[in-house]
Amino acid sequence: MSQLLVIGTGLIGGSFALAMRRAGRFQSFAGYDTDAAVLAQAKARGIIDQVVADPVTAATGAAAVMIAVPPLAIAAAVRRTVTVVKRGVPVFDAGSVKGDVIASLRAGGDMPAHFVPTHPMAGSERQGPEAADATLFQHRHVIVTPEAETDPTTVALVREWWAAAGATVIETNATLHDEMVALTSHLPHLLAHTFMEWAARPRSADAADFAGPGLRDFTRIASSDPALWRQIFAANRDALLKEFDGFQSALTEIGALLRDGRFDELEAVLTAARNARARLLERSDV
Amino acid sequence: MSQLLVIGTGLIGGSFALAMRRAGRFQSFAGYDTDAAVLAQAKARGIIDQVVADPVTAATGAAAVMIAVPPLAIAAAVRRTVTVVKRGVPVFDAGSVKGDVIASLRAGGDMPAHFVPTHPMAGSERQGPEAADATLFQHRHVIVTPEAETDPTTVALVREWWAAAGATVIETNATLHDEMVALTSHLPHLLAHTFMEWAARPRSADAADFAGPGLRDFTRIASSDPALWRQIFAANRDALLKEFDGFQSALTEIGALLRDGRFDELEAVLTAARNARARLLERSDV
Repeated sequence: MSQLLVIGTGLIGGSFALAMRRAGRFQSFAGYDTDAAVLAQAKARGIIDQVVADPVTAATGAAAVMIAVPPLAIAAAVRRTVTVVKRGVPVFDAGSVKGDVIASLRAGGDMPAHFVPTHPMAGSERQGPEAADATLFQHRHVIVTPEAETDPTTVALVREWWAAAGATVIETNATLHDEMVALTSHLPHLLAHTFMEWAARPRSADAADFAGPGLRDFTRIASSDPALWRQIFAANRDALLKEFDGFQSALTEIGALLRDGRFDELEAVLTAARNARARLLERSDV
Repeated sequence: MSQLLVIGTGLIGGSFALAMRRAGRFQSFAGYDTDAAVLAQAKARGIIDQVVADPVTAATGAAAVMIAVPPLAIAAAVRRTVTVVKRGVPVFDAGSVKGDVIASLRAGGDMPAHFVPTHPMAGSERQGPEAADATLFQHRHVIVTPEAETDPTTVALVREWWAAAGATVIETNATLHDEMVALTSHLPHLLAHTFMEWAARPRSADAADFAGPGLRDFTRIASSDPALWRQIFAANRDALLKEFDGFQSALTEIGALLRDGRFDELEAVLTAARNARARLLERSDV
């Protein structure tokens, strides 16, 4: 009987399991989580059929192993499972940073051929199996970053599952992935967090009285899990700092336009921004 | 017959007229716009019953005059109408900045008693009468900033209309309003615009491939009208620069935490941000 083993049954792992149920891709669903409450919720919500006590033992019988744990725990989970699965069984992760996982695996020996690094550009500021949703990956991009050693047949299997979850799969390399998500995901998170912390400092009035939907959407990602995002920022620190420094320069430039009353140039930046977003929405389907 | 005259029949003026129709607050609706296409659309969509060629003449017969034009055009529109309306008829605006309008009116003579400065904390990155929506102001805050000379009965009328549109009305002074919206609205817009322009600069890959819903929401306000936002930034420049400078310092601080690997402190900022947003959502109803 073909079984999907999900290690980490939170938002991402839970949503993937639900998507695979809906798509009819596996016959049974097993789950493991270090947090017993999360695991129990995943079972209670019908995300998994079976709670496993030991993920390594469970991996020996699985048809696929999805690792949806926080960044710093990924490499160890891959190492423990990829060595025990049946020949050709894919092990894949869903972490936000790819280079650090690959580097950590290489540091521990050969790059495993049946491990496929993946990253769905999807998520929610809500967490856990309660927020899991079979449609979370629909119309989303999933980035797959195989290494030279990665088995192409294994990559094809994992790609097909993500596609069955409704995602568009894009293949690139880990370095480029990490550079690009530093821009498209990690920097916006850092800015939203910084803004929200800044906005919360004591003032003459309550900011909530002056809040509208623009502020709500701009800060939505600031509600993300701090413990998770600490790990993401740490794992992709170099690429993020590069984008951070570049953005700060851009910010200083636009601040100077405002300060100096160079409003024609300021409006040109606003227009460039609006056009850029229109192109973004056109080219992606977010 | 009680008539509402809307000067500027775009998103905000159009939405207010639709909300008043739904609430049964006026018997007829007249509109004026310097853009003939916008005016024709407002008529075609049934937002207004009557297109007026001259807003000053139309104001003489109106029961209320709403001025929903770009910031730099507000004071002149107020001055031209407030002097011709029947005694006690409210004239009110919906601009994003209040201090500049009031200063401009004072510079031209006495502060008119029947002009009520208001600002709905609502909007959309979409524009024009096509985006107008009777529910735009529901569950939104509307800030009303009367001056010492403003007639309290007139303020009460305008407050009642905004409340009938579904909004929560908050009264404060223009200076505090401008300081607070510099934080809650103008700074986020400037950051989203700057980010989007930065993200659009040439890179090794297409950012759209790496875009998810977090990026979509974070940048939504970067699709706002550049010509309008140029005026808002100009009108509230001093207050905005104060928030801008403070935010840049906060950003430099968090950048240093990342650079120096001080991840415990970084996580504390992320946690403070998440808690602040939870309080914001709790206290406001955005």
